[in-house]
Amino acid sequence: MTFDPLIDDLVSANHILCNEGIVDGFGHVSVRHPERPGRFLLSRSLAPAVVGHEDIMEFELDGEPVDARGRRAYLERYIHSEIYRARPDVHAIVHSHSAAIIPYAVTGAALRPIYHMSGFLGAGVPVFEIRDAAGADTDMLIRTPALGKALAGSLGSAAYALMRGHGSVAVGASIKQVVYRAIYAEVNASLQSQASRLGEITFLNEAEAKNAAATNDQVLERPWALWKARVAARNR
Amino acid sequence: MTFDPLIDDLVSANHILCNEGIVDGFGHVSVRHPERPGRFLLSRSLAPAVVGHEDIMEFELDGEPVDARGRRAYLERYIHSEIYRARPDVHAIVHSHSAAIIPYAVTGAALRPIYHMSGFLGAGVPVFEIRDAAGADTDMLIRTPALGKALAGSLGSAAYALMRGHGSVAVGASIKQVVYRAIYAEVNASLQSQASRLGEITFLNEAEAKNAAATNDQVLERPWALWKARVAARNR
Amino acid sequence: MTFDPLIDDLVSANHILCNEGIVDGFGHVSVRHPERPGRFLLSRSLAPAVVGHEDIMEFELDGEPVDARGRRAYLERYIHSEIYRARPDVHAIVHSHSAAIIPYAVTGAALRPIYHMSGFLGAGVPVFEIRDAAGADTDMLIRTPALGKALAGSLGSAAYALMRGHGSVAVGASIKQVVYRAIYAEVNASLQSQASRLGEITFLNEAEAKNAAATNDQVLERPWALWKARVAARNR
Amino acid sequence: MTFDPLIDDLVSANHILCNEGIVDGFGHVSVRHPERPGRFLLSRSLAPAVVGHEDIMEFELDGEPVDARGRRAYLERYIHSEIYRARPDVHAIVHSHSAAIIPYAVTGAALRPIYHMSGFLGAGVPVFEIRDAAGADTDMLIRTPALGKALAGSLGSAAYALMRGHGSVAVGASIKQVVYRAIYAEVNASLQSQASRLGEITFLNEAEAKNAAATNDQVLERPWALWKARVAARNR
Repeated sequence: MTFDPLIDDLVSANHILCNEGIVDGFGHVSVRHPERPGRFLLSRSLAPAVVGHEDIMEFELDGEPVDARGRRAYLERYIHSEIYRARPDVHAIVHSHSAAIIPYAVTGAALRPIYHMSGFLGAGVPVFEIRDAAGADTDMLIRTPALGKALAGSLGSAAYALMRGHGSVAVGASIKQVVYRAIYAEVNASLQSQASRLGEITFLNEAEAKNAAATNDQVLERPWALWKARVAARNR
Repeated sequence: MTFDPLIDDLVSANHILCNEGIVDGFGHVSVRHPERPGRFLLSRSLAPAVVGHEDIMEFELDGEPVDARGRRAYLERYIHSEIYRARPDVHAIVHSHSAAIIPYAVTGAALRPIYHMSGFLGAGVPVFEIRDAAGADTDMLIRTPALGKALAGSLGSAAYALMRGHGSVAVGASIKQVVYRAIYAEVNASLQSQASRLGEITFLNEAEAKNAAATNDQVLERPWALWKARVAARNR
Repeated sequence: MTFDPLIDDLVSANHILCNEGIVDGFGHVSVRHPERPGRFLLSRSLAPAVVGHEDIMEFELDGEPVDARGRRAYLERYIHSEIYRARPDVHAIVHSHSAAIIPYAVTGAALRPIYHMSGFLGAGVPVFEIRDAAGADTDMLIRTPALGKALAGSLGSAAYALMRGHGSVAVGASIKQVVYRAIYAEVNASLQSQASRLGEITFLNEAEAKNAAATNDQVLERPWALWKARVAARNR
Repeated sequence: MTFDPLIDDLVSANHILCNEGIVDGFGHVSVRHPERPGRFLLSRSLAPAVVGHEDIMEFELDGEPVDARGRRAYLERYIHSEIYRARPDVHAIVHSHSAAIIPYAVTGAALRPIYHMSGFLGAGVPVFEIRDAAGADTDMLIRTPALGKALAGSLGSAAYALMRGHGSVAVGASIKQVVYRAIYAEVNASLQSQASRLGEITFLNEAEAKNAAATNDQVLERPWALWKARVAARNR
């Protein structure tokens, strides 16, 4: 492969997402192939914190590995394959079960942008209910292309979707943007839960959310530098 | 002894449970003897974080050590002995006082599976009330075989039980499974407490819980690798 | 420059504020120029944790850099310039989005001094609403001198102000005082949120707040030593 | 001095209390002089995390240093002097502003033992109101022997007392016991606050609390070993 810097970033994203509390032993992050948009890159089935360069596998949009070489794939790779198929604008995806967003995934309370850092939530956050797609006897996982397609349908054109009884998916135009979104969606959820106990919340309106998101997309390198430094310090 | 890898895992489990916030200076983890099912292995009376290979003692199912060599045993070893006696399917046990589960142990609020990671809670979480077994003048501890037997009776066939004014016990078929259960029961409790303030929770139904638990039991190595890596990083 | 110790403290303040959870990849801290009160010192656009001596830039009170040498300035430097212009008593400023204060910035709940450590909040904490200054279609940022002036107007003579849907600004007579205020405003917010769920709070009265603030201003070296030691340990 | 091991423990207690989140830049811990019960040992005015052997000063029960050698004493040393005077059974004292207990110090909600680890709270937790002792225009600090005496009066025979708008004081028969109490009072407060949002709490009754406290007093070495190991790891 000739796109090592992208893989470096994907490996860093794995480590950052664990270090910042978005993933633990579970969850994953992928990036669309930079040269072949019909493929994407995703680690083999590992805890993100321990993913290395050699663990990154290449997949087709049917979710099957191009060259598995004995490496076991994540059961839920169809989250990635079907969203890449449905959303040409998406070039990176994070799936996680981070703590503060789960309450919004199971109660029907709406996750909304409480401050400028999470303007990307402004267009609304859909909730995927697997029972609507596959009935009430699943194991909750997106383990087939059909379930991936149903999830992509719930996501629609949004930047972030919740999955009832499970977690969330963040999408973005780049690894740095999707990591930003996964982290600040989690922060927003925590802040919103705290604020909702104090009184009525004035959320960003649609224009404020859209404008703030556009502004923050210009400075994605700034938090990325911090997150990488923290991973490096942890690994020292 | 010829089963060093199992003891390595038991020592690791002690360190992991502290590192992940399930135990502090108190709490313990045991494993059934791999060759003699009428015995089990448990550290001498120590904070789990400082347990080493040489601290692991062997006990009979009456809770007495096989060869104490001056090592002091945990007062509450009867939690382990009586559950191993009552539950042939159980091969590992964690007793702890982790923070998020205590509120469920003292209020009667039911701990239920809020997401796929904690499907093992789906069959119900009993609460052991020591006053029912021994009256209202105890020191709360399971310090006799009779109290251990009463706790095992409350546990029944469940994977997890709460102990009023005290903590909890998790049981499993292996060290890795019981550590997983102790950690994700705690996570579930925290998520459920947060979610209950936002609105009515849609919990996993019985089928979803059972299916999800079966699926996650296939990937226990994944979080274990993370937890071991974190202990190693802490000890560097 | 001949005022290296002050710049050392400014760099330390950047690191401390990140290490203590007041800033993350975003937020900034400045100090008024020790010899030319019409100028101030502020890092170029970087995550505070990675700021070094060479990143500190000098600005005029119109918010423009004296000698940029290609270094990019924070968009929101007008928070600093306009407050220094309006408040001759202010010699250091922190802008941040720390977690516990956001709920007070979006709900109208009043942030008040719950204990002696946060007496500086006793004169009241104003909330800046950007819609009042610039309408409902901004990106929430203080990206012009006019917005900086409006914020300074809301701040008035207070030590701390909230910014709706955004964050906060702390001001002080020195770097050590403003870092103290940024940190203990955040602690106060967290304590107040917790306490408000337990019952009616007895806050410090005005005299207690003022007296406690005066006393604590005498011992600012004490927490500063801890915060510096923690940064040093993190960097080891 | 010939009692170095005791001073070692006092220095360790300073470090442990910071590391476990009970003190930050403020708060202090003392021990009664092992040979002269009319004296006590306490650090000079420093953040506990940075206290060393040479910072420990000796004080008379009037709160004055025996041999200051230029070292500045804590303003609030009268907390210690007057409690040692009033309570011959007390040999160690912690004063702190730990986060979870503050809500109980300002709302009138009663702090009660929620589990066996905090049985020492069973005899009741008094709240000291400085306004009753010195009116409504203080700086909240125990800065005179008279205020120390008033606080000791509120404490009575209890193991722990809250100070309105300020913090708490824990007392014990030894350094290890008082550190245990300071830490588990904080844990209890956090657990109680969480539990109170879920439903009616069944607290330990008086007998359970007393019995559990007596049992835990037998195993104080166990958490102490963990806390020391954590300090050592932090300092590595």
